[in-house]
Amino acid sequence: MADGDLVLRPIGQVESTLVDPADAPKQGDEGAPDASIVFDQEFGQGLRNLKPGDDVVVLTWLDRAARDVLVVRPRSDPARAEQGVFSTRSPARPNPIGLHRVKILALDGLRMRVGSLEAVDGTPVLDIKPVLRGVDER
Amino acid sequence: MADGDLVLRPIGQVESTLVDPADAPKQGDEGAPDASIVFDQEFGQGLRNLKPGDDVVVLTWLDRAARDVLVVRPRSDPARAEQGVFSTRSPARPNPIGLHRVKILALDGLRMRVGSLEAVDGTPVLDIKPVLRGVDER
Repeated sequence: MADGDLVLRPIGQVESTLVDPADAPKQGDEGAPDASIVFDQEFGQGLRNLKPGDDVVVLTWLDRAARDVLVVRPRSDPARAEQGVFSTRSPARPNPIGLHRVKILALDGLRMRVGSLEAVDGTPVLDIKPVLRGVDER
Repeated sequence: MADGDLVLRPIGQVESTLVDPADAPKQGDEGAPDASIVFDQEFGQGLRNLKPGDDVVVLTWLDRAARDVLVVRPRSDPARAEQGVFSTRSPARPNPIGLHRVKILALDGLRMRVGSLEAVDGTPVLDIKPVLRGVDER
């Protein structure tokens, strides 16, 4: 590890019927299945106050994405010119952090059920944040 | 570095008049100053297609935040009971990734000017993503 590198610690992982990244819809509202997030025991206290019905942002580490990609062709329209990855939601990017807005369907101990999550089984989870209306939405 | 650790590479950093984290507003709409993001040369191609007026999500690494915190008292109401960090937007959390929705004001080569960014000078930037209406906002 070079000086200045920043190291993440997964707090849990995704359990999903989605297993092949090629099957993952591009965004959660395009038919992704409900899924579970299973948190590591040591982070359980951090879940306090979350409850079913809450809208949250889930940050994941898209561990099967390429990191050496800076331009991509849109999957929906491969004939289009290449676009800079920072103008797209492509998983391929220097830091493949996935950003998923979902609703909590159920919460049982360290297991959180969420609606429509476009992340494959086994994807590491990095963070959960509440959606702030008026800040995340303008 | 332990096996399984995930390593981030900053793509640039924040230039801001905000220098003390204690002065940072909790969210960008509470009076944060406009700021600049200066990208590293090697990531410049990834900025293609971004333009002034675009709404983007900036992911930062809040490098001055504590990482061993799982419960916090809300800064706005310290008398309240402790809350799990994943139910708050506190910078203190196991992976202190900041999520900032901002508008691009200007883009000149590797320098992007953005509105109201609640991150202090020198904060590493991890990613830029376009806001997707209907996905990020529901």
